[in-house]
Amino acid sequence: MTGATTGKVRKIATEEAFSIPEVAEALKDVVRGPSLSLDKLLVGGIYDSKPTDEGYAKMSFLDGLLDVEDRRLKEMDRFGVDMHILSLTAPGVQMFDADTATDLAALANDRLAEICQRHPTRFAGLASFAPHSPKRAAKEMERVIVDLKLNGFILNSHTYDEYLDDQKFWPALEAAEALGACIYIHPRAASYGLKGPLQDYGMDSAMWGYGVEVGTHAVKMMAAGVFDRFPKLTICIGHMGEAIPFWLWRINFMNSRAQVIGRAPKTELSIAEYFQRNFVITTSGVEDPLALRYSIDKLGADRVMWAIDYPYQPTEPAVQFIDAAPLSDQERALVCHQNAERIFRIAPAA
Amino acid sequence: MTGATTGKVRKIATEEAFSIPEVAEALKDVVRGPSLSLDKLLVGGIYDSKPTDEGYAKMSFLDGLLDVEDRRLKEMDRFGVDMHILSLTAPGVQMFDADTATDLAALANDRLAEICQRHPTRFAGLASFAPHSPKRAAKEMERVIVDLKLNGFILNSHTYDEYLDDQKFWPALEAAEALGACIYIHPRAASYGLKGPLQDYGMDSAMWGYGVEVGTHAVKMMAAGVFDRFPKLTICIGHMGEAIPFWLWRINFMNSRAQVIGRAPKTELSIAEYFQRNFVITTSGVEDPLALRYSIDKLGADRVMWAIDYPYQPTEPAVQFIDAAPLSDQERALVCHQNAERIFRIAPAA
Repeated sequence: MTGATTGKVRKIATEEAFSIPEVAEALKDVVRGPSLSLDKLLVGGIYDSKPTDEGYAKMSFLDGLLDVEDRRLKEMDRFGVDMHILSLTAPGVQMFDADTATDLAALANDRLAEICQRHPTRFAGLASFAPHSPKRAAKEMERVIVDLKLNGFILNSHTYDEYLDDQKFWPALEAAEALGACIYIHPRAASYGLKGPLQDYGMDSAMWGYGVEVGTHAVKMMAAGVFDRFPKLTICIGHMGEAIPFWLWRINFMNSRAQVIGRAPKTELSIAEYFQRNFVITTSGVEDPLALRYSIDKLGADRVMWAIDYPYQPTEPAVQFIDAAPLSDQERALVCHQNAERIFRIAPAA
Repeated sequence: MTGATTGKVRKIATEEAFSIPEVAEALKDVVRGPSLSLDKLLVGGIYDSKPTDEGYAKMSFLDGLLDVEDRRLKEMDRFGVDMHILSLTAPGVQMFDADTATDLAALANDRLAEICQRHPTRFAGLASFAPHSPKRAAKEMERVIVDLKLNGFILNSHTYDEYLDDQKFWPALEAAEALGACIYIHPRAASYGLKGPLQDYGMDSAMWGYGVEVGTHAVKMMAAGVFDRFPKLTICIGHMGEAIPFWLWRINFMNSRAQVIGRAPKTELSIAEYFQRNFVITTSGVEDPLALRYSIDKLGADRVMWAIDYPYQPTEPAVQFIDAAPLSDQERALVCHQNAERIFRIAPAA
């Protein structure tokens, strides 16, 4: 129950995946059913493969997702990781019908809150919700923050091929803003209209398609003016900001021009200003010191958080990466724990 | 006919657009005809708008595309730009039927060669070809390099929604490799299967969709193993490498894993190795000193070339950007002209 004793800076890992058996079982049904979703490729491999299947042993992420308090805690101890901020792994509840999604989100949130209560210094949690039932989602979002004391929300990008620029989802955004709780937009495979050239060569998921999907989602929200309606909403995106920090000059320049000539909606702020005000990013899956340095120089050290992406990425190199990264002590403290404490309302270490 | 006299380092701008009246007229017909192409949004604005249309005056790129030897040369002189490497602007000939495309590519190449011959120190040229007629394309590619002495090739990403991983296009790749001539993959709007969420808010073109399209194209080629078949082929991509330099750690890690578990084809080299060996990038449309510094630190100063993206981007800030960028003299010489001289076989300044 105590924090890992490393003598080093506190380490809060911010994009750490878990699941519960009920969701895993329901995803197996989804995989076996009819669907054109590009998620089926990877989700099938995780939830519906057998020990005899090729590749199973090398991609047995399911055990790592379902275990939280046993091997995971030991691995955290071994490598000096103080806390995982847990979130129900992609695609979350967003491939289920709205009723099932609502029920399973609540169940997963209850379990998550229990884990966090048992290990308050080791685990925090981002709650799930069913975006396709927006009003029930808003109620659940209030329950998990006020009653369950969870730390924010997880959303796995599009929901049945629709994005948060669509006003049907805005009750959820309104709730998040009112609760002062951040929404982490995590990848899932690209939506139907975006998946065409991403179906081959393993490009559907983390190699490429995930970044296309979430980057598109974030730009869509900014260009649509979502943050004029919800100026205090904070969105977190992983994978070093899904490359948006690197694209920012061009997005900003071209959006400004598009507004002038009537090809993009007028917005109160520029894209660069929205990204700086309404977004924070994490390092999940991008253990590149140059990319980290770039992002901090671009956005400021108070906008970047460390993450592992457990169990999809191994813990040890993620720890070595952040330990060796060319950061000042102040920057390292912000990236490793202070930003996470502020954004996800986690108590500072005693 | 002489180079601009600046007293500064020679400046060769590497992604500079032009057109000819015949192609502009044919594109107007394409815009007015039936097509689901996402390119119609922007192409219509450029080729089929009237002076009375809203936004026309602010987006009158057509004049800048059709003029090469008058105002363009004056602007180059004014801001100390020694040379434009010209290429037929997107979507090039790739929205025409194969016969029309083949004919118009040859016509545009002839005109381009004449311009370069009249101003050998001010203009070089990348030749067009019709990828959807691959064998005729290969013949034209030989003609423009051997007979017309042009400097490389331009391709505007997908052709009727297909990419260069498709072996039907490989005669063109074989020709480019045999000729030792680089192919510049320039953006056009995303292919049919990729365009779904890119249709609103001006996201179809340079603000976002162009990068999604060309980045996807480049990753597709590497992941498919195209460069095992064409190890000496050089591909140039603009817009600071379409963010692939920033994504490289993750693409490489995930592709390696995908190969191990059988989700991606086995290739001889890693993605990072292909990108380093077979790709060069330009700065077009990304006038961000941090992104330039990152790219040079990641890829080496011999893989990055300066560009303006005339007439779509203004000349003066592009020049100011590269003059002020935090580069050593050696790096600046490489980025401003030496790399372009080597890759596009341009004679060094006398």
